[in-house]
Amino acid sequence: MRAEADAIIVTNGTQQALELIARVLITAGDVVAVEEPGYRPARDLFASLGAQVVGVPVDREGLVVDLLPAKARLVYSTPSHQFPLGTPMSLARRAALLAWAQRQDAAVIEDDYDSEFRFSERPLEPLQSLDTTGRVLYAGTFSKTLLPSLRIGFLVAPPTLRSALRAAKQLSDGHGQIATQAALARFMDEGQLARHIRKAARVYAASHAAILATMDAGLADQLELVPSAAGLHMTTRLRRGGKAVDGVATVDKVVAAARERGIAIESLASYCHDAPAQAGFVIGYGAIRSDSVREGLARFGVLLRRENAAS
Amino acid sequence: MRAEADAIIVTNGTQQALELIARVLITAGDVVAVEEPGYRPARDLFASLGAQVVGVPVDREGLVVDLLPAKARLVYSTPSHQFPLGTPMSLARRAALLAWAQRQDAAVIEDDYDSEFRFSERPLEPLQSLDTTGRVLYAGTFSKTLLPSLRIGFLVAPPTLRSALRAAKQLSDGHGQIATQAALARFMDEGQLARHIRKAARVYAASHAAILATMDAGLADQLELVPSAAGLHMTTRLRRGGKAVDGVATVDKVVAAARERGIAIESLASYCHDAPAQAGFVIGYGAIRSDSVREGLARFGVLLRRENAAS
Repeated sequence: MRAEADAIIVTNGTQQALELIARVLITAGDVVAVEEPGYRPARDLFASLGAQVVGVPVDREGLVVDLLPAKARLVYSTPSHQFPLGTPMSLARRAALLAWAQRQDAAVIEDDYDSEFRFSERPLEPLQSLDTTGRVLYAGTFSKTLLPSLRIGFLVAPPTLRSALRAAKQLSDGHGQIATQAALARFMDEGQLARHIRKAARVYAASHAAILATMDAGLADQLELVPSAAGLHMTTRLRRGGKAVDGVATVDKVVAAARERGIAIESLASYCHDAPAQAGFVIGYGAIRSDSVREGLARFGVLLRRENAAS
Repeated sequence: MRAEADAIIVTNGTQQALELIARVLITAGDVVAVEEPGYRPARDLFASLGAQVVGVPVDREGLVVDLLPAKARLVYSTPSHQFPLGTPMSLARRAALLAWAQRQDAAVIEDDYDSEFRFSERPLEPLQSLDTTGRVLYAGTFSKTLLPSLRIGFLVAPPTLRSALRAAKQLSDGHGQIATQAALARFMDEGQLARHIRKAARVYAASHAAILATMDAGLADQLELVPSAAGLHMTTRLRRGGKAVDGVATVDKVVAAARERGIAIESLASYCHDAPAQAGFVIGYGAIRSDSVREGLARFGVLLRRENAAS
C-alpha cells in the first residue's frame, strides 16, 4: 500500500481514527453498518454519536455486501482479518463492497488492525488500494505491532476528506503526543520496527501453528477452526458429534471453568450484538508463550470434552 | 484546591476535557454560553458538536452573570485569568455564577489554564472549591506549566458525572499515553514540577514587570492595561488622547507592521466573535526573554504612536 504524506493523519490509536471519521461523515440518525460478529468499541462509538448502527453478517468470504442496508452512509469493516472471526474478505467481496459504496454514495472504513502478522501467502490488496473513487478510509495502528499503550494509530484518507479530518482532530484534542511520535518515527527510520515485526511474527507463527496442531490432534470433533492466516487470535466454532451446534451456554461454562484454572479464552458470543449469538471460542495468543499455548489448549480440551458431552 | 483521586480524569490537554464534558452534557441544539471575548477553540468545539453557542460579555469583575441566557445548559468560563483579557472573576461574581447554575440546573466549566503563574496575593477560591452542588467541572493543564506538546490535562469532576466522563474518554480514544503520564507523575513526585514552576514564575514575573514598567513609562496615553496578576499574557485596550477608542483597524495596522519587524503581538479583535470587536492588543510573554520583552515593546510603542496619531 502506498500513501502520500499528506494523506496520513496520526491519531490516538484506531479508536480516535474512527471517531474523527464519524464526526466528519455522520450526523445523528444516520445508518452505520458494522460487521456481526464484530468489534464492540467501534459499534459503541458510532451509537454514542447518535448513529443508527446495523449489524451485517459475515460469511466465509467476509462481510455479506448483499445484506448491507441501502441507507448506510458508512460501513465499518475489517477486510484483512475479520474481527473476531479472522476470515479475510475475498477479492470478489472487496470489489462488491467498493461498487456498493459508489452506488450508494457511502464511505467505507478499512480497519487493518493486525495484518502485519501474516503466516501465509501474499495478502489480498487492501480496499484502500483497490478504491478508485476516494470512498475508503484506511485505519492502521501500532497497538498490535508494538504496544497498545503507545496510543498511536493513523488514518489514510482520500483527498476530499483530509482537511475536514484534520480540523476534527484539532477540535478534538489539538494534536498528538509529539515526543512519542518522534521516538516512533526514529524507531521506524532505523529499521527497528520492521526488525521487531519480523521477530514477533516468528513467535506468533509458532503459537498459530501450535493451535492448529493441537486442534488437528484432538479437538477436530469438538471445534471447527475458522480459517485465518494472520493476526494474534483465532476463532473456532463449537461442534458436537462433528456438527455445528447452538451451544452458547456450553461455551460460557467452558470459558468460566477455564478462567478458574488460569486459562484465558473468550466466548464468540461476547462479540455478537444481534441475535442469535454464535457458539464458539476466541483464542488470543498475542500475550502468551507458544509452549503455554500448547499446554493451555490441552487443558482447555479436557474441559471442553467434559462440558460438551454433558450438554 | 483538593480533589480525591477518583475525581480526576486525565485528558489529552484541556481541549479533550472540553470535548468529553460536551459529549456528556450537551445534545445538538443546546445552548452553551462562552465568554466574549474568549477562547475560540472552546467555542468552535461546542459549535462542532451542534450546540448553539452564545457569547456573554466580560466586565471588570469577569463574566457578566446577569447576561447569561436562561436556556444555557453549560457555561464555559476562565475565572482565574479571563482569556484573553486577564481579569480575575470577583468573589461576588463567582457566587452569583454558582447560584445561577443551581437555579437554572446548568453546569459550569472552570478552565484554569495558567493560574499557576501568579504575581500577586493569594488567589481567589476556585469555583470548584466554592461549589457545593456538584455543578462545576474544573479543567487544568500541564501545557502552560510544562510543555504544550505533552498534551496532558485533567478534569476534576463531580461524583455524578465521573462514570459518564470516563466512558466518553474510553469511547473517544481508549486511554491516555501511559508512558508520558508515568514520566510526568514521577517528575511531580520528585518535586521537580513544583521547582520548575517556581523558577519559571520568576522569569515570567520579570517579563510581567517589564511590561508594566514600559507601559507606565511611555504608553499610558496610548494603551490601557487590563489589570491581571497571573499567567503568560497581558491585554491592553487602545486609547487615543487618553480615551478608549474604536480603533480595530488601527490595531490591525500596528500588528501587521510589528510582525514585519519580528515583533509578535496579537489583536484583541481576533478573540472577539460577536460584534463589535474590541480594539486592543494581547501581549504574550510565555516564549520570550524578559529583556526582549522590553526591547520589543519599545519598538512596538514607536509603531503604535505613529499609527494611532495617523488615525
